[in-house]
Amino acid sequence: MSILAVGSVAFDNIATPSGKAENVLGGSATYFSLAASYFTDVRVVAVVGEDFTAEHENVLMKRGVDTRGIEHAKGKTFRWGGQYSDNLNEAKTDFTELNVFEKFQPRIPAEYHDSSVLFLANIHPSLQAAVRLEMRDVKLTGGDTMNFWITGANSELRETLRLVNIFLINDGEAKMLAKESSLPRAARKVLAMGPQALVIKHGEYGATIFFREGAFGVGTHPFRAPALPLEEVKDPTGAGDSFAGGFMGYIASQEELSREVIKRALFYGGVMGSFAVERFGTERLQSLTRGEIDARFQVFRELTHLE
Amino acid sequence: MSILAVGSVAFDNIATPSGKAENVLGGSATYFSLAASYFTDVRVVAVVGEDFTAEHENVLMKRGVDTRGIEHAKGKTFRWGGQYSDNLNEAKTDFTELNVFEKFQPRIPAEYHDSSVLFLANIHPSLQAAVRLEMRDVKLTGGDTMNFWITGANSELRETLRLVNIFLINDGEAKMLAKESSLPRAARKVLAMGPQALVIKHGEYGATIFFREGAFGVGTHPFRAPALPLEEVKDPTGAGDSFAGGFMGYIASQEELSREVIKRALFYGGVMGSFAVERFGTERLQSLTRGEIDARFQVFRELTHLE
Repeated sequence: MSILAVGSVAFDNIATPSGKAENVLGGSATYFSLAASYFTDVRVVAVVGEDFTAEHENVLMKRGVDTRGIEHAKGKTFRWGGQYSDNLNEAKTDFTELNVFEKFQPRIPAEYHDSSVLFLANIHPSLQAAVRLEMRDVKLTGGDTMNFWITGANSELRETLRLVNIFLINDGEAKMLAKESSLPRAARKVLAMGPQALVIKHGEYGATIFFREGAFGVGTHPFRAPALPLEEVKDPTGAGDSFAGGFMGYIASQEELSREVIKRALFYGGVMGSFAVERFGTERLQSLTRGEIDARFQVFRELTHLE
Repeated sequence: MSILAVGSVAFDNIATPSGKAENVLGGSATYFSLAASYFTDVRVVAVVGEDFTAEHENVLMKRGVDTRGIEHAKGKTFRWGGQYSDNLNEAKTDFTELNVFEKFQPRIPAEYHDSSVLFLANIHPSLQAAVRLEMRDVKLTGGDTMNFWITGANSELRETLRLVNIFLINDGEAKMLAKESSLPRAARKVLAMGPQALVIKHGEYGATIFFREGAFGVGTHPFRAPALPLEEVKDPTGAGDSFAGGFMGYIASQEELSREVIKRALFYGGVMGSFAVERFGTERLQSLTRGEIDARFQVFRELTHLE
């Protein structure tokens, strides 16, 4: 099944304890699409400026990503600069230049309307909702957000949450959205806002998925995929979007949407997140093989597997 | 196999977002012994004051813990007061009154010398080392420590680390001890200090065990036991000691010490830690059944188990 991702394409300046990189291709749609491209056909809707060249587009095209939905606008591409200290879970933003992204109105090519799965990466909740309503025939919708929208566009976000099947956020966002310090209670509150399932990402500790009763199977037992304890994290940027790409990409590649598929997808999410952080920007996501991915899936599986 | 625990017995004043409790029985040896008592015979060496009554001792004796090694000294028992805010992973200490614990010199009853497994709970590293050297015939030694000793008695702690087979600490302690921000690198450095295996506890995210090459099996692949996402944590006090009790207790209950046994032990550690925090003090650990423990073990197992 093909998957449509709507989000940002950006150029990032990144500094981490391992070094720095400038003007590297990034953005939520970029990381997501590259990660998902190892599992299924990916289509992308985003906006870029005149500084986005054929060479940049080729990074996506080489991975088979359909880039017809990338709008080329006058001006500069979205730019972000940030740095990480020893606590690699949190970035300190140096600058955010929205540029062409400021007036982004997702335009979905007619050829994309038959996509089976939709992923609404982190953009304004109202835009997410508009895309979801236009994509009437999708079988499954995933979505992401960030603190900025939880506080700044809360009512719009609540609308979007009703239109999303699986929502993916991190610990801090879940607690903020639910106004609740216990993670399982926060999860229950977010599920009551609409989604059938909620993935909470714990950074280096993996991710947990919580289900509404009856969603994709029976019961409400959560499931947790651990993350590999990584020797070296070069650049955490895009880890969450890469996680989402592996997770949604694997789901889209399967015929059936069962709990067991979702559990495996959670592991594949962790696998893609762990690859993403091994190099700066999207470098590692550009040159993987399915063999490498499945080998790491096996390592993740054995990491917590009892005989 | 019987296990000997050496550590503290205390009375705690605890305040958490769920409520508060005063003068509740606590201390590392208490939590450890109660947790381990569901798996194997437990003997305890500690010191208490005149305020420690037969009723208190009975809490341990009802669980079959051999308390002949508890020394009754003149004065008051060790007292600790602390509170937890919404971040339940960290306690703010209100007061610490060492009392009889200040001059604690562990005296091991002759009847305890045939113990097969030794656990050195969090006391001064020099006392840990002295106990270990006296218990010449133990087959396996586990140990714990805290930030206070890592900074205040570092060289003594380094001596103790050479005498311990499995060392158990949390993320922050591991990074502090190794002076290293990456957890896997910190683990490797701590293993180079002596222990064959290192358990790093991640609080609500579970625990990871790292092995030296050849320790209890082949290879150096780490293993991670997730923790159950708990709806309500009433009181986190003693979670780490209860984890250690479940972990070491299960190991002591097995004939053979293989990687598979250690993996299961890591899950049992998480199980006992998760029970401990459900009620104030040791309340929950006093009244469990092996059936409840094994049922939760199964839930933990399924939490990350792929078909």
